[in-house]
Amino acid sequence: MGVPLNFRSGESPISINNLTTAMNAVLDNSVRSSHPMFMNQLYAGVDPIALAGEWASSALNSNVHTFEVAPILTEIERSMLAKIASLWLGENADGSAPDHDGLFVPGGSIANLYSMILARERACPEAKKTGMPQGYVAFCSEQSHYSYKKCAHMIGLGMDNMIKVDCGKNGAMLPEALEAAIAAAKAAGKTPFYCGATAGSTVLGAYDPFAALADVCAKDNVWLHVDGAWGGAALVSKQHKHLMNGVERADSFCWNPHKLLGIPLQCSIVLSRHAGEFMAANSYKADYLFQPDKNNTEADLGDRTIQCGRKSDALKLWLAWKYRGDEGWEKLVDHAFSLAKFVEAEVVQDTTGAWALATPAQCANVGFWYVPPRLRPFNKDTATPEQFAEIAKVAPKLKDRMQRAGDAMIGFQPVPALNLPNFFRLVLPNPRHNSETKLRELMKRMDAMGADL
Amino acid sequence: MGVPLNFRSGESPISINNLTTAMNAVLDNSVRSSHPMFMNQLYAGVDPIALAGEWASSALNSNVHTFEVAPILTEIERSMLAKIASLWLGENADGSAPDHDGLFVPGGSIANLYSMILARERACPEAKKTGMPQGYVAFCSEQSHYSYKKCAHMIGLGMDNMIKVDCGKNGAMLPEALEAAIAAAKAAGKTPFYCGATAGSTVLGAYDPFAALADVCAKDNVWLHVDGAWGGAALVSKQHKHLMNGVERADSFCWNPHKLLGIPLQCSIVLSRHAGEFMAANSYKADYLFQPDKNNTEADLGDRTIQCGRKSDALKLWLAWKYRGDEGWEKLVDHAFSLAKFVEAEVVQDTTGAWALATPAQCANVGFWYVPPRLRPFNKDTATPEQFAEIAKVAPKLKDRMQRAGDAMIGFQPVPALNLPNFFRLVLPNPRHNSETKLRELMKRMDAMGADL
Repeated sequence: MGVPLNFRSGESPISINNLTTAMNAVLDNSVRSSHPMFMNQLYAGVDPIALAGEWASSALNSNVHTFEVAPILTEIERSMLAKIASLWLGENADGSAPDHDGLFVPGGSIANLYSMILARERACPEAKKTGMPQGYVAFCSEQSHYSYKKCAHMIGLGMDNMIKVDCGKNGAMLPEALEAAIAAAKAAGKTPFYCGATAGSTVLGAYDPFAALADVCAKDNVWLHVDGAWGGAALVSKQHKHLMNGVERADSFCWNPHKLLGIPLQCSIVLSRHAGEFMAANSYKADYLFQPDKNNTEADLGDRTIQCGRKSDALKLWLAWKYRGDEGWEKLVDHAFSLAKFVEAEVVQDTTGAWALATPAQCANVGFWYVPPRLRPFNKDTATPEQFAEIAKVAPKLKDRMQRAGDAMIGFQPVPALNLPNFFRLVLPNPRHNSETKLRELMKRMDAMGADL
Repeated sequence: MGVPLNFRSGESPISINNLTTAMNAVLDNSVRSSHPMFMNQLYAGVDPIALAGEWASSALNSNVHTFEVAPILTEIERSMLAKIASLWLGENADGSAPDHDGLFVPGGSIANLYSMILARERACPEAKKTGMPQGYVAFCSEQSHYSYKKCAHMIGLGMDNMIKVDCGKNGAMLPEALEAAIAAAKAAGKTPFYCGATAGSTVLGAYDPFAALADVCAKDNVWLHVDGAWGGAALVSKQHKHLMNGVERADSFCWNPHKLLGIPLQCSIVLSRHAGEFMAANSYKADYLFQPDKNNTEADLGDRTIQCGRKSDALKLWLAWKYRGDEGWEKLVDHAFSLAKFVEAEVVQDTTGAWALATPAQCANVGFWYVPPRLRPFNKDTATPEQFAEIAKVAPKLKDRMQRAGDAMIGFQPVPALNLPNFFRLVLPNPRHNSETKLRELMKRMDAMGADL
């Protein structure tokens, strides 16, 4: 790249020309996550207005920990949180936001971590001072994001005490399975305190049944958190927000606009329904930062956090939201959902035997197998173990070919719990420049590239 | 600002012209953290080359969790970590980097959190699965960053089990006090497992005596972490790196180039001296993200983290480091340190009685009182309680006047442990456009603005 990647000791300065060459090489050798054919992860495709906001926020280099150093950015964070709280909980009769507390945080895993700390503070306030006692257990679904397990590790609960609850065929948590898991834990002398539900699961896009889960949790005073990092975006759509029914009964909620809305990484929000909870759970009142004799300290966000420094991630979302309005996001989300349904229909209606549906379209996810001619016909309900073993090898090989050819990037994985060997998980986090035509062409190219596998 | 700060339900899109007006209002109402007179926090003043790297990284919107989606950015992160590991531990005879493991993370608090999780994994590997047992204790200094206490809260250790160790007059941890604290904990039946030391403390800029602390920690197999978020920058300076003597004996180390080097927020590194430790401590092996049958999965950084998504924070540092070379950083850091010494000398040599030294220059910090004429002479060693009470009120009032006038932003705080009432803590995280002349002028303005206090 004109400039060595690694460093020597006594590294010398290089010229701006060489630096430009190096920078171009970095860009040329990076994956085009904004390309419409990047459908590999739950983020992609930057919104250009939000990118302008991100650039401004980097140039300002403001840290949203105290009001005195980030006055307007603190207010913008609060304003954006109020907007999302209204989407989540519904607004008051006078149009104001409901009671809430929250923060922008670096990613969904840390958002889930916050929710678990809030739940621990309610269940066991002495943990903050004296440590996490043994005997507490938490729950998440079999199909939930792995951060729930990692958060259990982090907070000293232990991964074994984050109990996985069975899901139905669609990947949503079964309320009766949660109820049974809670009962089993109590029978074993444990104290259930937290349930992490999911709106838009990573692989299948499943929405847990929040109202039913809230009923179960209420019986044992279990904190209900909804990880809507991906699927929380349904809240902006009149057509799809029914998927979120009951979410307003959760104690906390997180959403990553850096996923389906295309806000630059990172843009994650975690909210609780009770004002003051973040401060109670996290404050330490460091006297050199949060002195009461400074101006406007009541507006400081910093002591409510587990970070000290926080870059402003609210400005970019605020700017893009003002520009696009609620209707802009609604159109975007509806388009993403409809494209997933389109691919599902293409697979289901296929008469060549090249495609088989693994998991139906939920959120903006759809799962399918590409079936090379030698493996046709493939039917997951009647397939032999040999056919399963063979189909499992197709997606890794075809993906490899597509990667090398610079074609679409699409993830694949198995779901052992649902007896699904490796299938393509197509997600649509960047629907702005995608269309039914492009997706149909993609499937043609996959068929051409994989026919001899 | 032309556009309402808050949102209504059914928020309509606004025009690009109104958006521009709003953006200008945001910029106009933000604190100029890149102004040379912003000396309020341990970050400021963006390096323009690094800013270009930050903008590129936002436009790429790459997530450094898997190699397949961020190939060159993964390599750049590894290359940058190797460079910092060489600075910290010294390079091998052949010029290669010593064994290490590490990550770029969103801020020093989270860096400290990682170190504590690594230490817990060594002391108590069952904690990952079964939870944090009672009985463990950790140590940090009286003058260390508050994140140590918050991390103890987070990992389920409890804030009370993060024991604060006394410091000397200069704010550095006393090794004999650490030894006594460890002995006392053991006598009380506790298991010491972690000591968080500091290179460049937040308020005083103090450097703990790392070699002596390492001797103490070695006796009881206590993990030694050095929080060099601010003062770790001394490693790039031949003149100042002696302050870091013994740091190479620490088990882990963190440094925030977003502080003294002026890399845009956030740019924080945490390193351990043992390869493989991050994976052992944090991995969960989520099968939809870190599948072994994908290409190049051995290069994935993601499962070593406690986040899932991570923006590339390495590119901006890499770019600026290539451009400035080791000598560029050395010059910058030496200048910052020398300006702090200059202000100290101005205060000490002052004959008007307007200034009194609270804490000598260490790292790029210096602490002093402004003494209005009615309180002169002020001598901290002979001051009456009334004089102490009066001087404590000066800094808040003078800072308020300076804030309203749009003059310099300088923090203040008391240090009760050292019997120091509110004093100005001047820090120099942005020395690029600062000079002795400008600082002398600042002191004149402070004197003029505060004379009637």
